[in-house]
Amino acid sequence: MTPHSFDESIALTRQPDGSFTGNTHPAYANMVGPYGGTTAAQLLNAVLQHPDLLGEPLSLTVNFCAGVADGAFVVNAKPARTNRSTQHWTIEMLQTGEVVTTATAVTAVRRETWADDEISMPTVPAPAEVPAQTGHAPMAFIKQYDMRPIVGGMPSEWDGSLHSSLTQLWLRDQQPRPLDYPSLAAMSDIFYPRVFVRRRSPTPAGTVSITTYFHANAAQLAQTGTGYLLGQARASAFRNGFSDQSAQIWNEAGVLLASSHQIVYFKG
Amino acid sequence: MTPHSFDESIALTRQPDGSFTGNTHPAYANMVGPYGGTTAAQLLNAVLQHPDLLGEPLSLTVNFCAGVADGAFVVNAKPARTNRSTQHWTIEMLQTGEVVTTATAVTAVRRETWADDEISMPTVPAPAEVPAQTGHAPMAFIKQYDMRPIVGGMPSEWDGSLHSSLTQLWLRDQQPRPLDYPSLAAMSDIFYPRVFVRRRSPTPAGTVSITTYFHANAAQLAQTGTGYLLGQARASAFRNGFSDQSAQIWNEAGVLLASSHQIVYFKG
Repeated sequence: MTPHSFDESIALTRQPDGSFTGNTHPAYANMVGPYGGTTAAQLLNAVLQHPDLLGEPLSLTVNFCAGVADGAFVVNAKPARTNRSTQHWTIEMLQTGEVVTTATAVTAVRRETWADDEISMPTVPAPAEVPAQTGHAPMAFIKQYDMRPIVGGMPSEWDGSLHSSLTQLWLRDQQPRPLDYPSLAAMSDIFYPRVFVRRRSPTPAGTVSITTYFHANAAQLAQTGTGYLLGQARASAFRNGFSDQSAQIWNEAGVLLASSHQIVYFKG
Repeated sequence: MTPHSFDESIALTRQPDGSFTGNTHPAYANMVGPYGGTTAAQLLNAVLQHPDLLGEPLSLTVNFCAGVADGAFVVNAKPARTNRSTQHWTIEMLQTGEVVTTATAVTAVRRETWADDEISMPTVPAPAEVPAQTGHAPMAFIKQYDMRPIVGGMPSEWDGSLHSSLTQLWLRDQQPRPLDYPSLAAMSDIFYPRVFVRRRSPTPAGTVSITTYFHANAAQLAQTGTGYLLGQARASAFRNGFSDQSAQIWNEAGVLLASSHQIVYFKG
């Protein structure tokens, strides 16, 4: 069986000094360098592959310090503190000896408690009723995902008119792959810059820092399987070259799997 | 003039090895140890006091790895990467040689661009029309803030009934102090655990990781001055001992100053 390109993209090799090495993957290339979602997944995977891991991912913050170049990288993941049921990780990615991303993560042993989804999945048409995104985006990573925008898709006219930045879309791997934490981390970054949607302005833009909270436990990931995810993203403010974005990811059954927030650079 | 207790609480002394030392402040004590908002402000202040600082705070993520004890602490703040207009910081707080918090921050040189607040401040009564929170909370830090809950105040009956977790409140320092980035970082953590409001359940709870995005530039902080802030917070999901919270902070003029997100432990 051919390995899934996402598994190839997050593959890491542990070195004798405890660091991990990996390579960016051409299938997940962005305009310049790799898709940031893949970078986040690689950093998280170093934690998941670490021999001292306790529990499952609860939160992940990734800071994009510099453009990640196509090619080899080193990831250092260190448990800064291990408690009885939570563990705090400090992570960095280096290329040619320079820090290109920093990250922190929290892993936790999940236990049964009272549970409640306070915000409900929005009422939207089923995935089969929503056409897949068409077009000719030049970035390779777009082809790895089946994306079906419901509202707030990529603008077809860049006329500078003001619109809600809300995007809702159905999303899954183009080649089916059961959902896990690395792919959930990657898909949490799938939304194009909110300034594109809000302002119909194709200005250069990119994520500076992203934080994802994983609400899904292992059983909920398994129940989601290869099904569609509903992603929703919106900005609250644009100012001084930066805007924010808050996103939610539900499975088709309406379970909130992740909430994710980021601060984004935009040029003008 | 007597220094403001908040300035005392975030005061740091730079050591010959480049680290900073400080002390928790009794005026900002929580039930056990210090109010987490003060801890976040101390970590940010180490960045602001660092001789290599570039720009102003854009984002701050603080991970509460272990309970911070009352008393002395050391903060190490290191610029992991300095770009032309952004700088990425890795920060940690230690007590008796053990890591108690980790953090990352991004600072940036703000420049003029198109600006737009997409979400509007909710329509609420003016601060003068909202009674100050009364009661007899045992935590000292509560007394440092003038808090005027509009909806979702601290429950008076812990009857287990289900309610929206939305809290809206007016907020400012009890002793007037012009707003700056450390106090905005501190106030972003002012909201009591969402499980209290949602479930009317006084279960033990505490912030695990908080990320704050600073939308305010220096001019907007100066315009805010000692005025009231409108804080709003809401959860999206409670599961497996953790819940999230998304918060917004506006000034009285309706400018969004910060958005802040956290993942919170709750016992049951």
